[in-house]
Amino acid sequence: MEQDIIFYTNPYSRGGIVHWMLEELGMPYQIEYLAYGKSMKAPEYLVINPMGKVPAIKHGEVVVTEAAAICAYLADAFPEAHLAPALSERGDYYRWLFFVAGPLEASFGLRTCGIEMTPEQQMQLGCGLPEQVLDVLADAVRGRQYIAGERFSAADVYVGSHIGWGMQFGTIDKRPEFVTYWQGLEQRPAHRRSMEQIEAAMARFPFPGA
Amino acid sequence: MEQDIIFYTNPYSRGGIVHWMLEELGMPYQIEYLAYGKSMKAPEYLVINPMGKVPAIKHGEVVVTEAAAICAYLADAFPEAHLAPALSERGDYYRWLFFVAGPLEASFGLRTCGIEMTPEQQMQLGCGLPEQVLDVLADAVRGRQYIAGERFSAADVYVGSHIGWGMQFGTIDKRPEFVTYWQGLEQRPAHRRSMEQIEAAMARFPFPGA
Repeated sequence: MEQDIIFYTNPYSRGGIVHWMLEELGMPYQIEYLAYGKSMKAPEYLVINPMGKVPAIKHGEVVVTEAAAICAYLADAFPEAHLAPALSERGDYYRWLFFVAGPLEASFGLRTCGIEMTPEQQMQLGCGLPEQVLDVLADAVRGRQYIAGERFSAADVYVGSHIGWGMQFGTIDKRPEFVTYWQGLEQRPAHRRSMEQIEAAMARFPFPGA
Repeated sequence: MEQDIIFYTNPYSRGGIVHWMLEELGMPYQIEYLAYGKSMKAPEYLVINPMGKVPAIKHGEVVVTEAAAICAYLADAFPEAHLAPALSERGDYYRWLFFVAGPLEASFGLRTCGIEMTPEQQMQLGCGLPEQVLDVLADAVRGRQYIAGERFSAADVYVGSHIGWGMQFGTIDKRPEFVTYWQGLEQRPAHRRSMEQIEAAMARFPFPGA
């Protein structure tokens, strides 16, 4: 699909995940930087994402929001980039994409809000405690270069970003499994290019709402 | 892939989503019922899902956990069932799968725990408030029979299950958009078959931990 890709982001947001994904893809794209609470809540952008948040992409007439959804969509839309695995690895691929987008985000969100779930709440919510989520994720990456099969995929972009940032910001412990997995990812040229662009954007927009 | 499908579930769990998906698929499968806190935490099952929760499936050697991941995997694994849309609809497909698995589950989890997010927490967590999530989801299904394109897909199983159960249990308001969308789904023969099996299992296992 040789259609324009427009990428809506803010350098302080989860948009960094999609930025890396777009660099892995190797296709041209146009970046629109939006400010929290300002252009992110403007009527023009609410047509793209009525949640008023980034990231989002527009690819031709297709609009996609949610960082994991954007990664999965782009991987399928550009099969020549080989960022979606073969069917035999799609079980792990979806499993870990949804594991991080669901239980990891939910359990860490509750921790951020100072909540310790009761056993009843744990059963009802089903997301598990943050430490349990990390135990399971550490098992998933232990001794593996990539999380779904033997080659790099969009799931590594998404899962790796959470692990890398979590360790950087102190929300995820620097367990040896995470450190080793992340070391194999962060030096990828596409990741480095995305980081350079994000840092340059941060210099231009020194505050998230700028 | 003509391999056995084993479905691990509990009739009181989100496994109902996968039960419906398996009935839509039309392939044979074997059900293993697990009890909360008992067989769900037994070593034999923790090999399948180290989170100790259901649903999970085993398809040949492929293990998948997380209800949305299982739906997406099965749709791809059995293309003849036409439950995964064409590429032009995959943007909406992934968008709403991840929207419900992420922001909807997270924001309702926080509400269940009695949390009202501050504006700072909202920005940090990015999941939005429950009412905002429902506004966006109502927009997505308004006037549409299916959530991704013109035909039924695995995303309708997943999104529809959340809307149908949410209205049943009172966590989601019976907005006209949700009522109309759900009416078009709940009478599907595959959904009815799954509900009959779930109700029969509830009669055999009268408590979630039984």
